Amino acid sequence: MIRIVLNKNEDKRIKSGHPWVFSNEIREVSDKGAAPGAAAELYDAGGGFIGCGHYNSRSLIAFRLLSRRQADLDQPEFYEQRVAAALAHRRALYPGMATFRAVYGESDFLPGLVVDKYGDHLSVQFLSAGMDVRRELVVEALQRVFAPAGIIARNDVGVRQLEGLEERVELLAGEIPDLVEMEENGLRFQVNLREGQKTGGFLDQKENHLLLKGISAGKAVLDCFCYTGSWAVHAASFGAASALGIDISARAVAQAARNAELNGLTGRATFEECDAFERLRSLHHEGRRFGVVVMDPPAFVKSRKNIAEATKGYLTVNRRALELLEPGGYLITCSCSFHMGREPFRDLLTQAARLAKREVRLVSARAQAPDHPVLLSFPESEYLKCFVLQAVG
Amino acid sequence: MIRIVLNKNEDKRIKSGHPWVFSNEIREVSDKGAAPGAAAELYDAGGGFIGCGHYNSRSLIAFRLLSRRQADLDQPEFYEQRVAAALAHRRALYPGMATFRAVYGESDFLPGLVVDKYGDHLSVQFLSAGMDVRRELVVEALQRVFAPAGIIARNDVGVRQLEGLEERVELLAGEIPDLVEMEENGLRFQVNLREGQKTGGFLDQKENHLLLKGISAGKAVLDCFCYTGSWAVHAASFGAASALGIDISARAVAQAARNAELNGLTGRATFEECDAFERLRSLHHEGRRFGVVVMDPPAFVKSRKNIAEATKGYLTVNRRALELLEPGGYLITCSCSFHMGREPFRDLLTQAARLAKREVRLVSARAQAPDHPVLLSFPESEYLKCFVLQAVG
Repeated sequence: MIRIVLNKNEDKRIKSGHPWVFSNEIREVSDKGAAPGAAAELYDAGGGFIGCGHYNSRSLIAFRLLSRRQADLDQPEFYEQRVAAALAHRRALYPGMATFRAVYGESDFLPGLVVDKYGDHLSVQFLSAGMDVRRELVVEALQRVFAPAGIIARNDVGVRQLEGLEERVELLAGEIPDLVEMEENGLRFQVNLREGQKTGGFLDQKENHLLLKGISAGKAVLDCFCYTGSWAVHAASFGAASALGIDISARAVAQAARNAELNGLTGRATFEECDAFERLRSLHHEGRRFGVVVMDPPAFVKSRKNIAEATKGYLTVNRRALELLEPGGYLITCSCSFHMGREPFRDLLTQAARLAKREVRLVSARAQAPDHPVLLSFPESEYLKCFVLQAVG
Repeated sequence: MIRIVLNKNEDKRIKSGHPWVFSNEIREVSDKGAAPGAAAELYDAGGGFIGCGHYNSRSLIAFRLLSRRQADLDQPEFYEQRVAAALAHRRALYPGMATFRAVYGESDFLPGLVVDKYGDHLSVQFLSAGMDVRRELVVEALQRVFAPAGIIARNDVGVRQLEGLEERVELLAGEIPDLVEMEENGLRFQVNLREGQKTGGFLDQKENHLLLKGISAGKAVLDCFCYTGSWAVHAASFGAASALGIDISARAVAQAARNAELNGLTGRATFEECDAFERLRSLHHEGRRFGVVVMDPPAFVKSRKNIAEATKGYLTVNRRALELLEPGGYLITCSCSFHMGREPFRDLLTQAARLAKREVRLVSARAQAPDHPVLLSFPESEYLKCFVLQAVG
């Protein structure tokens, strides 16, 4: 087994629960030519055992801790136990629910592995070399725990490059239909597991969608960056007078319309293919006003480098959204960028309110759904901010 | 009308939406002998009109802004409109609900006024001289908007001293029965509006109580500082195998038992009169373990001065609570101290987990219920932190 020894004092963070070791924190590796993802044991500078995990000399995140005890990381049993524990957590949170994030990487002590369960089908991401080289073990573990009808690997994500891995989509087991139907809050949605964003859909807003209840009844609702229409369809189902979803993707908008239809809400939720930045401006010029605006854009901040530019983007869209609100109207605004912190995002919204000359109340501050749990000792696991603001005057 | 002129550059915060002017920010007052609470107009150093509000030379918070336009603050119509707008917000949030915070001071543009609606009865706090001297106007406004069966003033709060006001409880209109029954999440609770804490009960955790759903089914639940048992009764109603509430107040514990009975949960929710700090220790020594622990103590931090001591208190109780959890168990932990910030509280919980040697996941991070709205420009309006943690190992 490969032995990794940390530099002096570099053991603190990992002993406090953080599962990553960066390459510059390592003093010594017994086998520098080890294949990416090999199992390794981690020791502090004094020779004390810390735990075992996956080693990848090609990544800045050189080691990911999987266990603080001795463990055989090359047996499917190890992954099976972890996956089963992750599932038990979801079963407790969501009794009877068929669609949820079943494994959320580090937060489920399975660094580099994401498993989204859409009913009988699993959509999986292998985000580290350690998990990628163990695809077969992991698939075996998933088969034992879920007995799914099909497993697809959505490895078409840029972050894999940091691990020296190629991007591709691959059917790993069984079959995956063109469209899978999922339920959320009693509503039906079709998801494309092969080509949809991320693992096919977004499962992290399910509780937040309920924030529309009450506030959207009888109101005109605007859903910006609507993708396949979850917010707009929820609004229409909660009795919105109208729900308009806008998105730049023709395919997303077409699917959104089908999702509305699936719920008998055609006409009450409608969709437009357009650039949200431009449309926000034109709606303003047309004098349109909304009782509720939802602003749930894709991550503007892809890395620390473009924070300034992305902040400007968030500021612009939120200011425009606030300007479109009728008196007493609500803005539900989200950021899924990890690099946009909760407090900075809130400060930005305060600034947007000032620019829009609206007095604004914070009604709710939410985060990602609890099937995307956050490890207290691993702040990187928290990314979603969702605020409900009310423009009072 | 009294004219108040600010020092140069002291207008920024208030122009950004904050409603308070501190005494040291004022350059000039036209009538220094004005009676506490008198209506006044506020101007910037350049003579520009900012708004009008209540002036109190005896308070550090010398001026509270009520309107950014000219307004007659000595007519009931002004208060009636504001109260009606506040009620409309709740009606939208909570269709059909009878019990909620109807007015939350600054967040409803009525600085110094709190109105809790318990069905047909209002329990009110006048927290500033400006509101206190206008009790009759305010009562008139409340009568017009709510037509309540009774209004009681729960002015027995220490913060009134800062305004030069005495502490007392006073029946302002109609009748207030010894016990009022309220409903929350379909459960029944009796509230003592005359002698209960704050306005009688706590209305700020209603959504958070639902966090017990799913995680408490079949589990032993411990409710620390249980007061009249809301958490424990909710847990029992969600199928907890047992729910034990502990509180140092014999009266609170007796009422908690009656609340359990009211919901047919006698025996499933039980209560003990004891010191929570000591009982947490003895439960640990007895080897007792719980599937869920709720830690919802009264505000440990009463002012900035005792933050260090209070932090120690929070650390101790949360560490002990974590030690009492069975593997996979949940801690629902709250702080209602404004001076304990959200991030510092989270850091403290990370530390408590380290001390308890538990690996801990953050499942949810919540705040006060939306009928206690937060003004983005007035951070003082946010006080409640509620985290759900899971002890994974």
